[in-house]
Amino acid sequence: MSIKPFLNDDFLLENRTAEILYHEYAAKQPIIDYHNHLSPDEIAEDKNFENLTAIWLNGDHYKWRAMRTFGIPEHFITGDATPLEKFKKWAETVPYTIRNPLFHWTHLELKRYFGVDELLTPYNAEHIYQYCSELLQTEAFSTQNLLRRMNVEVVCTTDDPADDLRFHRQYKARAGNVQSPNQPFQLYPAFRPDKAILIQNDGFKNYVEKLGEAVSSPIQSFDDLLQVLRQRMDYFHENGCRIADHGLEQAYSEDFTEGEVNAIFQKRLTGLEITKGEARMYMSAMLYHLTSQYAERGWVQQFHLGAQRNNNTLLLHQLGPDTGFDSIGDGEQAASLAKFLNRLDLAGKLAKTILYNLNPRDNEVMATMTGNFNDGTVRGKMQFGSAWWFLDQKDGMEKQINALSNMGLLSCFIGMLTDSRSFLSFPRHEYFRRLLCNLIGKDVHQGELPNDVNWLGSIVEDICYRNAKGYFGW
Amino acid sequence: MSIKPFLNDDFLLENRTAEILYHEYAAKQPIIDYHNHLSPDEIAEDKNFENLTAIWLNGDHYKWRAMRTFGIPEHFITGDATPLEKFKKWAETVPYTIRNPLFHWTHLELKRYFGVDELLTPYNAEHIYQYCSELLQTEAFSTQNLLRRMNVEVVCTTDDPADDLRFHRQYKARAGNVQSPNQPFQLYPAFRPDKAILIQNDGFKNYVEKLGEAVSSPIQSFDDLLQVLRQRMDYFHENGCRIADHGLEQAYSEDFTEGEVNAIFQKRLTGLEITKGEARMYMSAMLYHLTSQYAERGWVQQFHLGAQRNNNTLLLHQLGPDTGFDSIGDGEQAASLAKFLNRLDLAGKLAKTILYNLNPRDNEVMATMTGNFNDGTVRGKMQFGSAWWFLDQKDGMEKQINALSNMGLLSCFIGMLTDSRSFLSFPRHEYFRRLLCNLIGKDVHQGELPNDVNWLGSIVEDICYRNAKGYFGW
Amino acid sequence: MSIKPFLNDDFLLENRTAEILYHEYAAKQPIIDYHNHLSPDEIAEDKNFENLTAIWLNGDHYKWRAMRTFGIPEHFITGDATPLEKFKKWAETVPYTIRNPLFHWTHLELKRYFGVDELLTPYNAEHIYQYCSELLQTEAFSTQNLLRRMNVEVVCTTDDPADDLRFHRQYKARAGNVQSPNQPFQLYPAFRPDKAILIQNDGFKNYVEKLGEAVSSPIQSFDDLLQVLRQRMDYFHENGCRIADHGLEQAYSEDFTEGEVNAIFQKRLTGLEITKGEARMYMSAMLYHLTSQYAERGWVQQFHLGAQRNNNTLLLHQLGPDTGFDSIGDGEQAASLAKFLNRLDLAGKLAKTILYNLNPRDNEVMATMTGNFNDGTVRGKMQFGSAWWFLDQKDGMEKQINALSNMGLLSCFIGMLTDSRSFLSFPRHEYFRRLLCNLIGKDVHQGELPNDVNWLGSIVEDICYRNAKGYFGW
Repeated sequence: MSIKPFLNDDFLLENRTAEILYHEYAAKQPIIDYHNHLSPDEIAEDKNFENLTAIWLNGDHYKWRAMRTFGIPEHFITGDATPLEKFKKWAETVPYTIRNPLFHWTHLELKRYFGVDELLTPYNAEHIYQYCSELLQTEAFSTQNLLRRMNVEVVCTTDDPADDLRFHRQYKARAGNVQSPNQPFQLYPAFRPDKAILIQNDGFKNYVEKLGEAVSSPIQSFDDLLQVLRQRMDYFHENGCRIADHGLEQAYSEDFTEGEVNAIFQKRLTGLEITKGEARMYMSAMLYHLTSQYAERGWVQQFHLGAQRNNNTLLLHQLGPDTGFDSIGDGEQAASLAKFLNRLDLAGKLAKTILYNLNPRDNEVMATMTGNFNDGTVRGKMQFGSAWWFLDQKDGMEKQINALSNMGLLSCFIGMLTDSRSFLSFPRHEYFRRLLCNLIGKDVHQGELPNDVNWLGSIVEDICYRNAKGYFGW
Repeated sequence: MSIKPFLNDDFLLENRTAEILYHEYAAKQPIIDYHNHLSPDEIAEDKNFENLTAIWLNGDHYKWRAMRTFGIPEHFITGDATPLEKFKKWAETVPYTIRNPLFHWTHLELKRYFGVDELLTPYNAEHIYQYCSELLQTEAFSTQNLLRRMNVEVVCTTDDPADDLRFHRQYKARAGNVQSPNQPFQLYPAFRPDKAILIQNDGFKNYVEKLGEAVSSPIQSFDDLLQVLRQRMDYFHENGCRIADHGLEQAYSEDFTEGEVNAIFQKRLTGLEITKGEARMYMSAMLYHLTSQYAERGWVQQFHLGAQRNNNTLLLHQLGPDTGFDSIGDGEQAASLAKFLNRLDLAGKLAKTILYNLNPRDNEVMATMTGNFNDGTVRGKMQFGSAWWFLDQKDGMEKQINALSNMGLLSCFIGMLTDSRSFLSFPRHEYFRRLLCNLIGKDVHQGELPNDVNWLGSIVEDICYRNAKGYFGW
Repeated sequence: MSIKPFLNDDFLLENRTAEILYHEYAAKQPIIDYHNHLSPDEIAEDKNFENLTAIWLNGDHYKWRAMRTFGIPEHFITGDATPLEKFKKWAETVPYTIRNPLFHWTHLELKRYFGVDELLTPYNAEHIYQYCSELLQTEAFSTQNLLRRMNVEVVCTTDDPADDLRFHRQYKARAGNVQSPNQPFQLYPAFRPDKAILIQNDGFKNYVEKLGEAVSSPIQSFDDLLQVLRQRMDYFHENGCRIADHGLEQAYSEDFTEGEVNAIFQKRLTGLEITKGEARMYMSAMLYHLTSQYAERGWVQQFHLGAQRNNNTLLLHQLGPDTGFDSIGDGEQAASLAKFLNRLDLAGKLAKTILYNLNPRDNEVMATMTGNFNDGTVRGKMQFGSAWWFLDQKDGMEKQINALSNMGLLSCFIGMLTDSRSFLSFPRHEYFRRLLCNLIGKDVHQGELPNDVNWLGSIVEDICYRNAKGYFGW
């Protein structure tokens, strides 16, 4: 058995059919990145990053976790060390990340964006840093050009209801005048109202005030709050938003009355403590109202379920949330989720829905849950979303694709998204596409699928591009 | 690497040892289908189905879910469309079911029963429909002959305690006179008392009345109910029943007194609401009494655990249960199940038991649970049952076989069952056998098992046939 | 495709890179068996076992479970049958254990310790029994020599706080005088205070008395108990202990006050019943205090989470615990575990920690949990421990290695331990090393890792030996 070179053109493709499916079908498709955490500011301003640390390490809590595990002091991670010092510490860590997705992401990103073919080590760290940092100053490495280079057609950010979307508006206003005619992408916001839902968060009261200010209308009741959120949805809709997103431990679906919920809301606003049960009731009500509104607007709703966040209080207080101290939760999902979806369905208000789970043991629960509410009205109405966060690697993606294949219709899948904060993460689409083509190619060679490359290639194209294009209302 | 033709003679067999094990050992074994949902009526009457839709699509909620996911309106699924229209919509869906077990089942069934070697598509749909529908009118395609053709030796249906078993009696009475001497199969009922257990179901009170009428003895107390159920068990036993089955979210094992349980029962009969806790106590008591009786009669008891049923209220009300709106639950199983089994074991009333789980994440819990109550009295007394429902596909079956192998004795496994409503589902035994032989064959080629085909073939035969034959008391 | 001979030199190694990594790097490393249940008595006395049943079957509840599943009466397992009779019954069972790890362990152990290359069957059972039993009488088969032969450098037993460690002291005292200079291993105790934690156990009160007697100081309050345990830790520390271990259903982390906990303790000592909630509060407090002390002493703490023990009351009463009636639990782990670790971390008292889970569905929860508390202070401070008990087989080990790889840093892993009661279990290190090398070798051949055998070999050595050596403070 010969040894395949690392990361060559046929990376992750184990046979000829897989290669054909990838190179002839998948690779040619544009990217619809329908959910990420890119900064609309940095896109609208068409920013160039100062150096490789700024674009690649800052904010990347995946890398930070690996560095901490490897024993790198915080000074070199989020602390006061220079960008080059931080980069060198990352380069020290990289050879020890073998078998972790970081090892693949790192070298795939160096290769695809910078043409760097070497493995990153302490020995070439400074050279690579300087080389890439210089490239980053050139026009070809502005944020918009980085996206264009990846053949991105749609970028969908994640935005707070209180956001004025000025950068989305700015991008749209200027996009018409863009010089470069090839592949100008579209930029859309997404509506992420977590802060209006998570009533037990410290900042809840302040957030409600902020929301009121966004529409110059003070919020004094639960009804007021809903009214403001509806106004914000209208505003988002005008600005191209067709998708909402929620990061929740689970789908809340307690029974409630408007009176009860308003009382809980008032209690919280006056600064009194509310119980866990009250919080659940409030969150259930808010979720129900929000998601009903999505249905009325024809939006797609996303639920990212099952993260257990902010486990390390010490470092949360030092560094804030989303800094690498979250992990996979193991709470029950199925009953509350079914009740939540069913209530909307009964009311005729179940929007197109994407369910993402963080614990891979729930793949089959999610894959079969979607089947409960696919009612023949929309092809692939209920989606079991792509592997996410900790699962965004070969094993996790393959398990999601396989569970979806076995318990749903892979052919109707809307495929991959980056969910990333980084402008250099778009090779994840390539990674997903290679894995998808490889799984199908292996089935063909094993006689488990017919050897009909045209047909299979067409389905691959659907999953990589056309299904998403048809699914979202842009 | 050459491409293996789809669904050829060595389908799912990846090496020579696997091929030998399958063709020389597994394929030759008769089928003991010890649990399915076939209609005893249609068997006893030796019915011919009118057309391919009638035998293949009607009642098949696996296909219905796929069609709904693909965006087919209900009119063409369970509605008033003609059988041919429905079939065409199914044929439209089939090419989009790649990687779903439906794609394999569909073509395996067309091939094994009808000799159709083509892939089903919209282009040949009408032709295949007419061709198969004509065949279905011939004697060779009567229900009994369909079963005989698959080398079925035992068929065990699933029956309500109130059932008079007239069709089982009718079949038995005539079977002695059957002309064709080759492979007449035996038909047995199984005792499925779910309706007597699920006290919170709407129809509970009516069901209790119906049960009383079955023995012409009104049921006025929990004791009466138990007495009637014992009578029905005797009746089932006389008619060849040696197996019971239960479809439950979990094994209920609350503590109870007879007084408490009778009070709950009375409350329910008089139409008062009972609490969830009361329901659990009642169900625990009923389960304990029923299962003790199984042990006394030497029956085998089956538990199908972990489905979350009827999630879509709207379509439940339109179409009833078992129409494609169930999914995989994620409740805890281990503690209550162990307590339930231990209580019976302590009382010397633990019958031979088969545990089936629907959530594949529970495979290891179930596989190790059986070990707690295997006490050396009966070989393979406690069985971790074959992959079921959503798991009845390559990945699910392999995971069950592997978990059982790693945490129990695969050699003592009683193997596959269809659990199906369809007369065309029996190639699932073939599918299971191929996978089993392939897993063993792969181990041999990798040097993880000795290359002793006689020995391994003998174990394969045990799993495919002899273990089940010895396990059930027929 | 050729058939690889069973259990040959390249067992479990599927390509040339895997072979090189194993033979040139992994196989040469000494063994640090940092957690097992060997008897310090039998080590210190350098005992020879009377026969193969005594060293191999007695106490091996893995084999017992298999025999019970196969239908062997208890008489031949734990009963009064002769050692040869018992061995013959085991030999009858062995051919039926194919695909269970017992099949591999059995033949690997016969081969590595006794040079027996045959498969064990009823036909050669008596011959093998006599042959091995004779060898067991020779000096080369004394306990110390068995360990030396496996290149064991450190053996760490599991000991009760009340233990006087006389055998550890005896071994240490004599070890200086050992004649054979090659590979004398070090013997250390580990601190396992489960009996002081599990307040609801029947023997709790007696155990507290026993602990008091160990230090000649009666225990009359929770404070007394903590004081005594601290003294015992000091004593263990003097005798080389640097590691603690806990077998718990989950990490308890309820809020508590010292007053509440002392009241619960008093209640229990006076013989009153305590509630489940009180027990949880007590256990939370005791765990917090113990683990804080570990941190102060620089120890490593281990948590074996998620077993559901003693499920079969009948046989528990006949045979006692640890006799084969335990199974995998499915309770929630993530929230309580995070709270437990976070509380210690906030107080600056989080020791180096190894988390072992018994339910493989929790692999990803554990692998990501460790990341929450790796803070850059110690390389690999938080460890996701090796596959354990039911998971101590190919599938279980590979899943643990893969989850750790995907969600942490495999390179920082401290690797394998036997966790065994048997002197013949040390080939499990070989087994683990082969699997590890094979996974890495496969990645190389598939182009998913660079073909840099020096680098990968060095990481393999780290995982097999150097990481553990650096991690523990011996």
